[in-house]
Amino acid sequence: MAAPREPEVIRDKAAMRAWSRRRHAEGKAVAVVPTMGYLHQGHLSLVSAAAASADPVAIVVTIYVNPSQFAPTEDLATYPSDFAGDLRKLASTGVVDAVFSPPDLYDRGTGRRAAASGGGAISCLEEEAGDGHETWVRVEHLEKGLCGASRPVFFRGVATIVSKLFNIIEPDIAVFGKKDYQQWRIICRMVRDLDFSIEIIGSEIVREADGLALSSRNVHLSSEEREKALSISRSLVDARTAALKGNTDCKQIKNKIVQTLTETGGQVDYVEIVEQDSLVPVENIDGPVVICVAAWFGKVRLIDNIEINTRF
Amino acid sequence: MAAPREPEVIRDKAAMRAWSRRRHAEGKAVAVVPTMGYLHQGHLSLVSAAAASADPVAIVVTIYVNPSQFAPTEDLATYPSDFAGDLRKLASTGVVDAVFSPPDLYDRGTGRRAAASGGGAISCLEEEAGDGHETWVRVEHLEKGLCGASRPVFFRGVATIVSKLFNIIEPDIAVFGKKDYQQWRIICRMVRDLDFSIEIIGSEIVREADGLALSSRNVHLSSEEREKALSISRSLVDARTAALKGNTDCKQIKNKIVQTLTETGGQVDYVEIVEQDSLVPVENIDGPVVICVAAWFGKVRLIDNIEINTRF
Repeated sequence: MAAPREPEVIRDKAAMRAWSRRRHAEGKAVAVVPTMGYLHQGHLSLVSAAAASADPVAIVVTIYVNPSQFAPTEDLATYPSDFAGDLRKLASTGVVDAVFSPPDLYDRGTGRRAAASGGGAISCLEEEAGDGHETWVRVEHLEKGLCGASRPVFFRGVATIVSKLFNIIEPDIAVFGKKDYQQWRIICRMVRDLDFSIEIIGSEIVREADGLALSSRNVHLSSEEREKALSISRSLVDARTAALKGNTDCKQIKNKIVQTLTETGGQVDYVEIVEQDSLVPVENIDGPVVICVAAWFGKVRLIDNIEINTRF
Repeated sequence: MAAPREPEVIRDKAAMRAWSRRRHAEGKAVAVVPTMGYLHQGHLSLVSAAAASADPVAIVVTIYVNPSQFAPTEDLATYPSDFAGDLRKLASTGVVDAVFSPPDLYDRGTGRRAAASGGGAISCLEEEAGDGHETWVRVEHLEKGLCGASRPVFFRGVATIVSKLFNIIEPDIAVFGKKDYQQWRIICRMVRDLDFSIEIIGSEIVREADGLALSSRNVHLSSEEREKALSISRSLVDARTAALKGNTDCKQIKNKIVQTLTETGGQVDYVEIVEQDSLVPVENIDGPVVICVAAWFGKVRLIDNIEINTRF
């Protein structure tokens, strides 16, 4: 571990781009770790992956709760934040050079839309024409299933904000966590399809000792809910073990997971077994797949997944 | 006019990006002029605008007939091309450093979609999930009216290919013709909304001595159709003159243009009077607007427009 070092905090787009261009002029690669803050060990593992990605490398962590990926019904207002704590954690790694934390990255325009949107969720689909933000990047098939089914604006918001961050920071490398598996796949596809000159690193899920995948939203779980939520990772490991033993029928596997989650008090959003690259559901496991779960425990929606990389 | 000079022809994405980065390393700005080839004086005026945009500047002209902006019913197959002639014209300007003319810029994937799309139109909206191109940039309000109403995939294709070209070439400046007025406005909005670090220059329409706006598609007009098509520019100038004299009622102005075009044998797609920035239709002209026309003469769809910049 490097010695603690305060990252430079940058609030402004133009200053961010200038900073990044100076690092390039010094012959450094620039690696970005996009986050929404309230950092935990999972995020810090992304920072480690960034530190190992190139030499010499300048690391930028972005902290920005992106309003466009929240539907008006979702938890934008209660999304946890702790900027001072985040800075301390990043300083403790000793490898983060800058934190990009802008106040707002969307042009709200001057008309009625601007007044209506304020600093909150932004979604032009239902809004009128004008001079506000209306450009969206969509990865049209990958965005549809899994979390996209219950969160219709989510991946449009993610792909758009990541495009904006890429254009502002002009990184050579970007690191995403595989806990948000669909997001990672969508970003990889977007980078290929739009010819961004950026290497995407997918970083493995970080778990508590008892298996719970780290998430900023875990803070909202009561200790009882947290205990019950362990059924997610447990049922995923059990499913993987069963598949490797030859139980490859997806309907059976999914039913078992749904049953386990429901019995422990979870409310299942989805359980799906999909191809790793296309995220197309499969009926039987005969190649690399990922089992993806989203479930509510109390008022908290948790996601998790497990890859099966064997060819059967 | 500079002495004739052969531009370097680049076919490959990686070579194009490397070329552009070398120019940047030499301290030059890079200006791009995106075209679909079959170049005329209108395109060469864009090159002149690029040459005047920075000093020192390296100029790239792209020649690529973008399949994703054509619907299957449209004229992709008959779109005119003359690569050797284009190169001669660009060489004659003496200021073009490179021509980027790739064979195909879309990943067609490996599945059924790949077999079906071949080298032709590409549109994933109606296709199945897989590993082919599926990322699209949309400017959701500006893309809807005017040409977007009769050409539903057009601006999605334009915004997406321009994003790809921007990411491959990494230009500082890009020049677009105001003849494609809606396209120009869409690109400006996209650049703002996605934070591309690129200055967009809108270049004025170039006309024949008799008023006909230059277009690669003019080559398909018979001499009789060409004569009739002069009614487009004539009716636009008349409308502007009338508006400046105080006839600012849009319904009257539009009816007059439709009448003129129809009487000369044109089939009107649309006549609209819209705000210059938002492209929202207005009922009465009391600020900067643009009158936009699309009409068929024979089998050729022509577009034209005229700005009225006065505040009334």
